[in-house]
Amino acid sequence: MHKFEDLSAQFIEKFNIEHFPLQPETLYGPNRYFLQLGGKKIRPVLCLMGNELFDEINADAWNVASAIELFHNFTLIHDDIMDKAPLRRGVQTVHEKFGESTALLAGDVMLVTAYDYLNKISGKYIFSVINLFNKTAKQVCEGQQLDMDFEKNEKVDFDDYLQMINLKTSVLLAASLKMGAILGGAGERNQSLIYEFGRKLGLAFQVQDDYLDAFGNPEKFGKQVGGDILANKKTFLLIHALETISEQQKQHLQELLNGETKNKVQDVIQVFKECKVDEWAKELKDKYISKAFTHLEDIAVLSKRKEPLKQFAFFLMQRES
Amino acid sequence: MHKFEDLSAQFIEKFNIEHFPLQPETLYGPNRYFLQLGGKKIRPVLCLMGNELFDEINADAWNVASAIELFHNFTLIHDDIMDKAPLRRGVQTVHEKFGESTALLAGDVMLVTAYDYLNKISGKYIFSVINLFNKTAKQVCEGQQLDMDFEKNEKVDFDDYLQMINLKTSVLLAASLKMGAILGGAGERNQSLIYEFGRKLGLAFQVQDDYLDAFGNPEKFGKQVGGDILANKKTFLLIHALETISEQQKQHLQELLNGETKNKVQDVIQVFKECKVDEWAKELKDKYISKAFTHLEDIAVLSKRKEPLKQFAFFLMQRES
Repeated sequence: MHKFEDLSAQFIEKFNIEHFPLQPETLYGPNRYFLQLGGKKIRPVLCLMGNELFDEINADAWNVASAIELFHNFTLIHDDIMDKAPLRRGVQTVHEKFGESTALLAGDVMLVTAYDYLNKISGKYIFSVINLFNKTAKQVCEGQQLDMDFEKNEKVDFDDYLQMINLKTSVLLAASLKMGAILGGAGERNQSLIYEFGRKLGLAFQVQDDYLDAFGNPEKFGKQVGGDILANKKTFLLIHALETISEQQKQHLQELLNGETKNKVQDVIQVFKECKVDEWAKELKDKYISKAFTHLEDIAVLSKRKEPLKQFAFFLMQRES
Repeated sequence: MHKFEDLSAQFIEKFNIEHFPLQPETLYGPNRYFLQLGGKKIRPVLCLMGNELFDEINADAWNVASAIELFHNFTLIHDDIMDKAPLRRGVQTVHEKFGESTALLAGDVMLVTAYDYLNKISGKYIFSVINLFNKTAKQVCEGQQLDMDFEKNEKVDFDDYLQMINLKTSVLLAASLKMGAILGGAGERNQSLIYEFGRKLGLAFQVQDDYLDAFGNPEKFGKQVGGDILANKKTFLLIHALETISEQQKQHLQELLNGETKNKVQDVIQVFKECKVDEWAKELKDKYISKAFTHLEDIAVLSKRKEPLKQFAFFLMQRES
């Protein structure tokens, strides 16, 4: 059994090959640029961990891990175009550096290359893995579309927001684990349990991310505190606040959001505290973590095999609490 | 054996189903809008014809034909974004009607859906078909990138231009035929011959298209005569002219291209005539057609099986000559 950190290092080494032809450099150069920016490789490693939960890691799992990583990078390149993001991982995004049209095509060809790796699956599980991969890819696109739709809406229901986050971020974590599990020969019940473990963990992570934006320790939190508030981004905190506070508080909050006052971040956080959004978010996160661990418990393999996934979940959730 | 028209009608009927989920409508509605705009279905029908050249059309060929049609529509949606094209088939393009971000995502999800159909291939040929599909998809992206690169260059070599056209338009026609042939059990030599038949036919078609833009009969030609000239588009005619004319004529042609004079179209056509670009283009087209037919002749099946493809090639080339 391998820890997340070990598999991450192994994957980074294996993945550090030439995935694209050399020419035309104007198309493939941007992809090489983007891939060497790094990243934590959480999704491909989850595929490997899902695989090792049931068997020794096999060649198919390594190929699917590469496909997942390429798919994830494809979504980042295209999302950055849509979000008009100038920076990713501290450097210029692909469209910023090479132009939007090239970024669009570079993303397209990255997705096709992901399917090259899927087409290398040698075993009988190829159909079910590609089925899940395609279903998940569509869900991620749906999540991104809903996110853009919600930006235009003044009011978004909590359930709709939860579904958007689920599609945009959680299902890929869940499916990565499940694809590994399928390739490890897991039965259907175990497949569903590992999927739900990943999905709940993803939701917990997003709640935590939203919480830290407002209540994180600026020295420990990697990003600017209050960034979501300044950008008027819809978050778990804001949506819950708007659904639960009094009419008077709501009016005050809307005024703060619509304005650009000097103390906007502090003032919004004050409202959040008054209506105890911070406590609610902690509880919601704990609820998802607890559910995730219950699913992991229920998987019918020896409990020592689950240790690396448990450690990973703790690591993911300990950033700042 | 079925004629192109019959298979086209059959494919249109079979393809007229719901390819996407109903929700979110904001994502899948644009795809439904685009698919119902129609089109001639040349590529999927070539897959069916390539299949029927060797055997009765099988279920796998129908699925691959659907994948090819979805892939082709994905490229159109994304190309229209890159080309900032307001109209396609006489109506608003997806990005014009629904916004660029949605068009980008709608294209992405269209490509994923194409892979859903490929994943339905039941026979042993699944790996080689998906391999060819992926290779071709990458080549089409490369062709589009080269096309954009060439727009920025003052001078483009004939060989580079030919390679760009080959990638951007010919390889998909060729691969469509070959995928059908693979699924029909064709041997490797026959597979290569049908591929080259399609590739040469595609090149002949593009030469003809460029020729008709300048020398077509306005009443028979579907588009505005001289459209390429007005848009300063690089074409087989222009690139050959610039490579072969005298320095003096070249200077004159460049002045015409850089200017926006009233008689620009007529004046450029006059230069084309002076250096006999029209005759050269006719010969080039005939050369490719002749090569295409030789490849078709060489395919080792009964010659009556080849009749529909012969008829299709004649039909494609008779628009105006």
